[in-house]
Amino acid sequence: HTQGARLQERLQTMAGFGALANGGCNRQALTAEDAAGRDCFINWCQALGGLPRRDSMGNLFVRFTGSQPELLPILLGSHLDTQPTGGRYDGVYGVLAALEVLHSLQDAGHRLRRTVELAVWTNEEGARFAPAMMGSGVFAGVFEQAELYQHRDQQGISLRQALEASGQLGSEPCQPFAFHAALELHIEQGPVLERAGLPIGVVTGVQGMHWYEVIIQGQSVHAGPTPMALRTDPVQALMQLLPQLYGRVAEAGEEARLTVGSITTSTHATNTVPPQVRFTLDLRHPQQAVLEALAAWVEDKCTLSLGALQIRIRPLWRSPAVAFDAGCQAAIAQACDQLGLAHHHLVSGAGHDSVYLARLGPTGMIFIPCRDGLSHNEQEYATPEHLQQGADVLLHTLLTLDQ
Amino acid sequence: HTQGARLQERLQTMAGFGALANGGCNRQALTAEDAAGRDCFINWCQALGGLPRRDSMGNLFVRFTGSQPELLPILLGSHLDTQPTGGRYDGVYGVLAALEVLHSLQDAGHRLRRTVELAVWTNEEGARFAPAMMGSGVFAGVFEQAELYQHRDQQGISLRQALEASGQLGSEPCQPFAFHAALELHIEQGPVLERAGLPIGVVTGVQGMHWYEVIIQGQSVHAGPTPMALRTDPVQALMQLLPQLYGRVAEAGEEARLTVGSITTSTHATNTVPPQVRFTLDLRHPQQAVLEALAAWVEDKCTLSLGALQIRIRPLWRSPAVAFDAGCQAAIAQACDQLGLAHHHLVSGAGHDSVYLARLGPTGMIFIPCRDGLSHNEQEYATPEHLQQGADVLLHTLLTLDQ
Ligand SMILES: NC(=O)NCCC(=O)O
Ligand SMILES: NC(=O)NCCC(=O)O
Repeated sequence: HTQGARLQERLQTMAGFGALANGGCNRQALTAEDAAGRDCFINWCQALGGLPRRDSMGNLFVRFTGSQPELLPILLGSHLDTQPTGGRYDGVYGVLAALEVLHSLQDAGHRLRRTVELAVWTNEEGARFAPAMMGSGVFAGVFEQAELYQHRDQQGISLRQALEASGQLGSEPCQPFAFHAALELHIEQGPVLERAGLPIGVVTGVQGMHWYEVIIQGQSVHAGPTPMALRTDPVQALMQLLPQLYGRVAEAGEEARLTVGSITTSTHATNTVPPQVRFTLDLRHPQQAVLEALAAWVEDKCTLSLGALQIRIRPLWRSPAVAFDAGCQAAIAQACDQLGLAHHHLVSGAGHDSVYLARLGPTGMIFIPCRDGLSHNEQEYATPEHLQQGADVLLHTLLTLDQ
Repeated sequence: HTQGARLQERLQTMAGFGALANGGCNRQALTAEDAAGRDCFINWCQALGGLPRRDSMGNLFVRFTGSQPELLPILLGSHLDTQPTGGRYDGVYGVLAALEVLHSLQDAGHRLRRTVELAVWTNEEGARFAPAMMGSGVFAGVFEQAELYQHRDQQGISLRQALEASGQLGSEPCQPFAFHAALELHIEQGPVLERAGLPIGVVTGVQGMHWYEVIIQGQSVHAGPTPMALRTDPVQALMQLLPQLYGRVAEAGEEARLTVGSITTSTHATNTVPPQVRFTLDLRHPQQAVLEALAAWVEDKCTLSLGALQIRIRPLWRSPAVAFDAGCQAAIAQACDQLGLAHHHLVSGAGHDSVYLARLGPTGMIFIPCRDGLSHNEQEYATPEHLQQGADVLLHTLLTLDQ
């Protein structure tokens, strides 16, 4: 068994980096807060004999060498970055629970055969820099590092600049290495397990997701003397467009998801119709074919040229639906059985670094319930009991895969 | 007659301060560009013997002493600040045409009896700092200077800091002085004169205007795993609210105006329903009673508490409908007759510093047409002929009032 109290203590400490007033965290990727949190994590790992290194995407790997280092390693981990109004568990739990698993094994004097690489992936959230799962994406060869280096945050800072400024730019190239299996433990971030009253989810895969940027170009005019009928108002175009998009997604059924996470007018003068409105779209569906049909419709609706009014859509990211390794799923289910914990198979609504690791080798994910299915929110919460049960399942799955 | 070519040249020079790629200007109040433009203007004035001084709101007054300095002065002027994507004429024309009038009088060897105070009011646009017409508003005792000093721009810089940083904080207190009359020449910024085919508008008054900030508070949740039905999405609330507001204003008839100049989500993560959306409202109507009825309806619609969804509205500014002095209107109409220029009486759709000066003494405004009624836009344009005709009307009105 893992030590739930020690895990709690570390979760609490990590929540101090980028702490927000309402209990959550703003520890966005490659900020000073993120760097400080990672330093704290490295100290914990080194006290247990872990050997840290960073790659050119800022991914952090801590090696715990096994008794048979010639065997392929097992990857454990998740991410430490958060949303701007994020919680204390998303990502962090997966990293600190993996550390707790290794700590408990040392306490028990159990030496693993295989080396464990404890991974902290850079910018999983995609909040500061789009897209999400950047570090694992470059690791898996899905993204071009040179291209991502030029992505900029809202302040105009490039990813490359942020890597340097935060001291996270490692000397090793970001490239894949072979692994025996990769495991990620995470809060569900949705309502399924809580509603089912079950402590553990065996994740079968991840739904498909598309990200877009939409720009509506109108004409800036004076708020006072300009008759309403003479305006080409991008805000009025927005208010006509959005109900169509949400309406179409509602028709596609309960599983379809649409989110507008960011809207900004290009100017902020109260007395001027803004020349432009920019917003983002996050579109998801577990079935790849349904997602693609929805995406085609949305892309078409967001492409318009009508006099001075122009609507343009630009894809930012496409992550197709993914199925996880059957062997890993079986090992997780077996661990649950050993521990006497009921489990449920489910599809993840959120993207995770495991999505990209699954392209390289056998990958599995374990979910625990979170209160009200709430995530990407300061009130994000999971009970100490579920947190420890998840860590125990991770421990037992690791032991199975180490055989 | 004034010299149209000299006026053109100065307009061109001023357009170089904060010049934008598409022909317009971004010379927002109390920026380095605004300060540089004012310095250039001061040089021109000093070359004609004008004596400049600044007050504690950064209002700039240049005194041209008359032959009978014991008489009450005449105030001429407007503003030099622009919108973020502003044109070359809004405000600037009124200031530089007043200078041209004084220059022409000197050329002709005509000494006015009355002293002229050529005024450049601070932050008329209200684009960088809300509300508009700040400098003239404090001058007229409508706003509290100490309160305005704390207003902040989008970057969090306070008005007081901006006054200091731009070198525009004057040593004199901002307080009213008595004047014989105040005159402001401006482009119409709307389509009335152009459609009527008339070169000059005698402005009878200014419509009433209300500014608001509206905040929709929802709940931030994850874009992926959160079913649409479980969301409290401020963006969806926005898309339901806006059509009601625009619809109500449309019902109020052609004269009613509604503008949403700024929308921002409080976070900009693509994969998170934002916790909050903030937007501004600019509501106008020439009839005070109609404006107030509309405003009450809008304020009511934007006040809601429905579970996690909260809509709050905060008034930023109320400027009631204003009627200008009949004597000034008559003097302007008489100048038009002297010059053989047809004119039209009309209400201004835009606010102007004259709105506040009218509380202190006899105030009048002269309009000229602008192309397509377009203003607060880089393509803002007025013909050289109209520009000179307006300046000529200002000259003749000044001569009449100097009697
Ligand atoms: N786990 C998590 O919140 N990942 C962010 C990527 C996504 O948008 O699903
Ligand atoms: N003239 C002008 O554009 N003034 C700005 C104040 C307003 O009408 O909003």
